[in-house]
Amino acid sequence: MLRLMELTEKNKTALIKELKEREKDDDLEVVAKVSNILSKVKKLGDKALLSFTKEFDGVDLKELEVKSEELDNAFKLVEKEFINALQEAALNIKEYHENQKNRGYILNKEDGVYMGQRVIPLEKVGIYVPGGTAAYPSSVLMNVIPAKVAGVKEIIMVTPPSKDGGINPYIAVAAKISGIDKIYKVGGAQAVGALAYGTETIPKVDKIVGPGNMFVAIAKRLVFGKVDIDMIAGPSEILVIGDKNANPKYIAADLMSQAEHDKLASSILVTTSMELYKNVEKELEKQVEELERKEIIKESLKNFGIAIVCDNLKECIEISNILAPEHLEIMTENPMELLGEVKNAGSVFLGHYSPEPVGDYFGGTNHVLPTNGTARFFSPLSVDSFIKKSSYLYYSEEALKKHGEKIILLAQKEGLTAHANSVKVRLN
Amino acid sequence: MLRLMELTEKNKTALIKELKEREKDDDLEVVAKVSNILSKVKKLGDKALLSFTKEFDGVDLKELEVKSEELDNAFKLVEKEFINALQEAALNIKEYHENQKNRGYILNKEDGVYMGQRVIPLEKVGIYVPGGTAAYPSSVLMNVIPAKVAGVKEIIMVTPPSKDGGINPYIAVAAKISGIDKIYKVGGAQAVGALAYGTETIPKVDKIVGPGNMFVAIAKRLVFGKVDIDMIAGPSEILVIGDKNANPKYIAADLMSQAEHDKLASSILVTTSMELYKNVEKELEKQVEELERKEIIKESLKNFGIAIVCDNLKECIEISNILAPEHLEIMTENPMELLGEVKNAGSVFLGHYSPEPVGDYFGGTNHVLPTNGTARFFSPLSVDSFIKKSSYLYYSEEALKKHGEKIILLAQKEGLTAHANSVKVRLN
Repeated sequence: MLRLMELTEKNKTALIKELKEREKDDDLEVVAKVSNILSKVKKLGDKALLSFTKEFDGVDLKELEVKSEELDNAFKLVEKEFINALQEAALNIKEYHENQKNRGYILNKEDGVYMGQRVIPLEKVGIYVPGGTAAYPSSVLMNVIPAKVAGVKEIIMVTPPSKDGGINPYIAVAAKISGIDKIYKVGGAQAVGALAYGTETIPKVDKIVGPGNMFVAIAKRLVFGKVDIDMIAGPSEILVIGDKNANPKYIAADLMSQAEHDKLASSILVTTSMELYKNVEKELEKQVEELERKEIIKESLKNFGIAIVCDNLKECIEISNILAPEHLEIMTENPMELLGEVKNAGSVFLGHYSPEPVGDYFGGTNHVLPTNGTARFFSPLSVDSFIKKSSYLYYSEEALKKHGEKIILLAQKEGLTAHANSVKVRLN
Repeated sequence: MLRLMELTEKNKTALIKELKEREKDDDLEVVAKVSNILSKVKKLGDKALLSFTKEFDGVDLKELEVKSEELDNAFKLVEKEFINALQEAALNIKEYHENQKNRGYILNKEDGVYMGQRVIPLEKVGIYVPGGTAAYPSSVLMNVIPAKVAGVKEIIMVTPPSKDGGINPYIAVAAKISGIDKIYKVGGAQAVGALAYGTETIPKVDKIVGPGNMFVAIAKRLVFGKVDIDMIAGPSEILVIGDKNANPKYIAADLMSQAEHDKLASSILVTTSMELYKNVEKELEKQVEELERKEIIKESLKNFGIAIVCDNLKECIEISNILAPEHLEIMTENPMELLGEVKNAGSVFLGHYSPEPVGDYFGGTNHVLPTNGTARFFSPLSVDSFIKKSSYLYYSEEALKKHGEKIILLAQKEGLTAHANSVKVRLN
């Protein structure tokens, strides 16, 4: 089911080109619609939110905020085992992210000079959580916990109401476990607008994170700059590097776990063993028939499922670095030996017993990762996504007298004489 | 010359609204032009670059790369004192930014589980440096040195050629001092396109930083996602907090050092003392007449020069936090006491002898700062701007057996059965 490619220089380029073709430019008609929704929300506030919710979600809400009884009630509707598993996952995620906390620093120099950098949590953050079949409790944890660890004061969740005007109980449970402060039943571009501009009910935030459909993604892009946003997720990918001893059954299952997301998902095997490739093919054929989402999986593998056979592991890593996959699994004898060579990958899964879903749900690393080759320059969601930095500088009179003339010279050569003047007035 | 405002709730809102009006939406005609330039560069490479350079810069270049003799020669054209001052500034900037280097971490857990985060420098970075009167050697240092400290392998500078086909010697000197690897004589949107797509001569980079005119800013916005970019700078601001003992002469000079940048620049005095405000006014009138850029300064102060008189310093800081200025100067008895209250500010200048130009040119902190109120969520340019993070995760067979069922349950409840399957195949 994977298209076989032999490694050549030409192939590398062709591969990237092909994967890039998954990218779609924003649909301009949708941009216009979203832009209109945003300006109505900006102008009319809650009234616009309630009206769009009626129009798009078919629900006539009286108020937007989810009451605490509704949250508490969700715990009765959800299986105890699920709650326990989610709580354990939350602890793992918290422990992993605690290590990301950075402090500021101060640098003391001669003549009483000091300077440094402070690390300050964002004050308010909004999390978008999709409704319907794309309502993923695990994503709530992955977006909220790093913000909590960063020290964000207020975390607000927006999510579309279900048909009965309620909220998905799994999402409610995840919200409560991860420590959300407020939840509002509003989705789509209108929810993004509410978080960006603020309404009578929903506060304006400093950053909006979380996945969403095309309307949500375009709305986030349009409000970027007024507030910060997380990455805009593109189609995602897994790349598995396996040597001759890797288990084809595991590899096939892992490739399909990515493929089931979406027909634009890309699942790539890079191996030193033609035999492994053949056995993975057999396993794919066999396993796919038993999977619920087999139609999506088949289409995704047909479109973007590729196997590349290389001469050695060095070449395998080279291919991976060029493609910069969101998820990279390394199933070789000693995967840690190869980790240092990995330059571009969102998250790396090492060994035979670390399939991607361990990281998606439970291990502790974040599952919000740079997609579509952007791991070349973007990073996983982390505590750093929820802080900002601010620098400070103190010069004593003595220090300014010592260095002032140099500063004046540098400013003058740039033609910025008022800059020079602000030092001059202090020297006389 | 500053408009006086008394502090009220209404004023706060009005103030923000007014400052926000400085924002301009992208001119759609320019967007179309830039988009056309980018696609020609993508398609025709160097040929397009040479042709646009002829068209826009009026220079018919034979080749784009600056030769090392041209760089060496620049050192003969520039004053020795300037070179020395720039070298000393470079050392200060390097020392300050060295403190920003972050390492990755590893978290070892029971059953052989480990996971962590790696910090990896970007491989290639492009720096845009404007030509003509906006050619600022200090900006070369501020953009390049953090990238160098981060460990970026290849740093490429693009800058428009001067009329004789050469390069501004001050920029050349700054490039050499800060450690640029290659310089190409190309500017405008075409230079951004070259860095984003690569041409025969200019390599494709992972991130593009540096200031530029409207064409450059729009080009950066359009290629964002294919490569990373730094912030898109808006009009900039200074906010000075002064108590009754602050020196009006210094404050007036500092307000004007910001105002000289641009008629959209905003210079704001926030004080507890009506008398200070009056004396600052007198100093403005007096000093402005002696400054070269007095026309810009007068217009800028007329448009966006504001003085706000508050009851106490707490209120002053509150105003500052709402406006989130790019530059904040605190001229009070004990400025360090107030620093902890500052939530939103790009860079803070403490005391009477730390005017903003110390940070612009010499002290060591970065002068590339979040403008236009975005210090609420954006940070100064730093070493972190030139790295990416990548996580990794290892589960042992034992650990997967212990936790596998929980992962399967979480995946199943999200309807992602192929995810569940990838754990299942390993448990049997």
